[in-house]
Order: sequence, then structure tokens, then C-alpha cells
Amino acid sequence: MSLKIYFCGSIRAGRDDMGLYAKIIDHLKKYGKVLTEHVGKPDVEKSDDTINQDKFIHDRDMKWLNEADAGLVGAPDKLIHDSSIGWLDQADVLIAEVTKPSLGVGYEIGRAVAMNKPCLFLFRPESEYKLSAMISGVHDGERFKLKNYSEPEVYKIVDDYFETFKIQ
Amino acid sequence: MSLKIYFCGSIRAGRDDMGLYAKIIDHLKKYGKVLTEHVGKPDVEKSDDTINQDKFIHDRDMKWLNEADAGLVGAPDKLIHDSSIGWLDQADVLIAEVTKPSLGVGYEIGRAVAMNKPCLFLFRPESEYKLSAMISGVHDGERFKLKNYSEPEVYKIVDDYFETFKIQ
Ligand SMILES: [Ca+2]
Repeated sequence: MSLKIYFCGSIRAGRDDMGLYAKIIDHLKKYGKVLTEHVGKPDVEKSDDTINQDKFIHDRDMKWLNEADAGLVGAPDKLIHDSSIGWLDQADVLIAEVTKPSLGVGYEIGRAVAMNKPCLFLFRPESEYKLSAMISGVHDGERFKLKNYSEPEVYKIVDDYFETFKIQ
Repeated sequence: MSLKIYFCGSIRAGRDDMGLYAKIIDHLKKYGKVLTEHVGKPDVEKSDDTINQDKFIHDRDMKWLNEADAGLVGAPDKLIHDSSIGWLDQADVLIAEVTKPSLGVGYEIGRAVAMNKPCLFLFRPESEYKLSAMISGVHDGERFKLKNYSEPEVYKIVDDYFETFKIQ
């Protein structure tokens, strides 16, 4: 199976879980290409403080557009949004780590559900967070699946998920 | 103008801004019916700690379904989700306070954008939070509008927004 996988995790809402995202992304590579691999990389928003300088944005965009595996380092927000939705549209499946509240992750899930993409939501109940009803309430056990986990179990949960996964 | 307005604010991700949501909702009532008025009310998730008890859920659902203006007090997650999406589908406009990161708010915005609903996003740059690129990147100045504000300005921003608003 070689899938196109859209992985979601918190970026601007906080990078506490970045190391965990990176490990999940590495594991997902068994199953195909992770289109959003930058979510698990430390420099994803390094250039944020200069994001509003026009010349800087132009030069960076050109560089960004010219890089084959560029991810979204320092891209302006509309380009980040439009590229992400383009990737989501191509994706066979969305996998979201939903423990840390994040508008971006919620938005991507909303767009994915509207596209009727298969989704797996991964939540750590041992965390300090409560999961939104808009995410737990979309779980139907079929196309949209929510799994609670603690960290060592996540690889097994991903393997079980893909064992029965069918490309839609 | 009497509109159906879908207001979004953080619920489970944190209620720090509840008082502000309540004031924005009160102001929005000048323009029509706020379908999600519970977002500004203190008891919206009062019964959360007992949410997994089946009999409790059944009895509460029946009570909930029987109440005309029940909001979403204590409803189970699938019912919260499905009711919310039903309201969103009916709404003429979505107004979201997006300062505090929230999966639910992000999800509702994603669904609204997919429905091509007019949206106004309200963000406080003075807060401790950085806005997700998925929200700022959806701003097009037309159908999807992001406005930065500090609290006293929000009523004027809402009034300006509705002054030129046309039902789609
Ligand atoms: Ca969110």
C-alpha cells in the first residue's frame, strides 16, 4: 500500500508535541508519502517575525516555490493555506493528533470531513486537555475514527488502522 | 436585517473568554438570531463529568430534545456535532472569535468555508496567542474576513461588517 497521507498537528498553537508528531510521521511512512512532513520539523516557522515584510516574502516565496521538498518554512499564510488544502484534496487519508487544541488542526479536519476523506483522530486522555465535541462527535467508527491512546500504543493503533484501510 | 448567525468560541479548550463571547453575542442580536447562544453561557458543559453514563445520557437527551431553547447543555458529542452542523447549514453568516486556539472553532470554520458561507474572524493580537495560518490564510477580504481588534473596538467592527453585508 502506498498512500498519500495528510498528517495534522499543532503548529502556532504550540509545539510541545512536535517530537511525538515526528515519531508518528516516521511511522506513517511505512504506508506511503506524508504530504505534510514539515509538521514534525523544528524549523517550520523559523522566519515568523519577518513574515510581513513584502520583499522578504517575495524572495522567500520564490525560494520556497523552487525547492522540491520545501514544506512550508516561512511561507505567507495564504500560500500555507492554499498549499495545504491542495495537499488535502490529493490525500487518501487524514491522520490528526488532536490532543493540543489548535485552530489549524480543527480547520483541516473540518475541510477533510466536508470532502468525505477517511480520517483517524488520535487523542491522549492522560493529557491536561478535553477533546472538542466537534471532533469526538464526528466519529462514526467507519470513515471517521477517533482512537484514545497513550504514547507507546500509537504505532499499534496506526498499524491496526491501516490493516483494514481501503482506498476510497 | 434579521439574519441567522452562527457564533463560534472556545468551549472545551477553555472558557477564559466566555464573558467576552457573551458580550459579542448580545451585540450580534441587533442583526438577527444567534443560533449558538449557549457558547456565551456559563453552564454549557456543566454535566461533563457524568457524560459517559449511559442512563444519564439517555435521560438527558430526552430532556434535551424536549426543550425548545435548550442549547447544548450536557448533550452527547454526536448530538452536539450534528445539531451544530445543522445550525451552520441554516446560518446566513458565521462569526468566530478566534483568539484562543480551539479544535471546535477551527472545525466549524472549516465546515463553513467548505459551504462557502460568509465568515468574519475576530482576533486579539494583544493576546498571548498566534493565529493559525489556516485561518489568516483563508481571509480574502470579501467572503472570508479577518479583523484584528482590541476589546472596545469589537462592536464597531461588527457594525461595520453588517453595514455592507448582503445575504448570499
Ligand atoms: Ca483548534
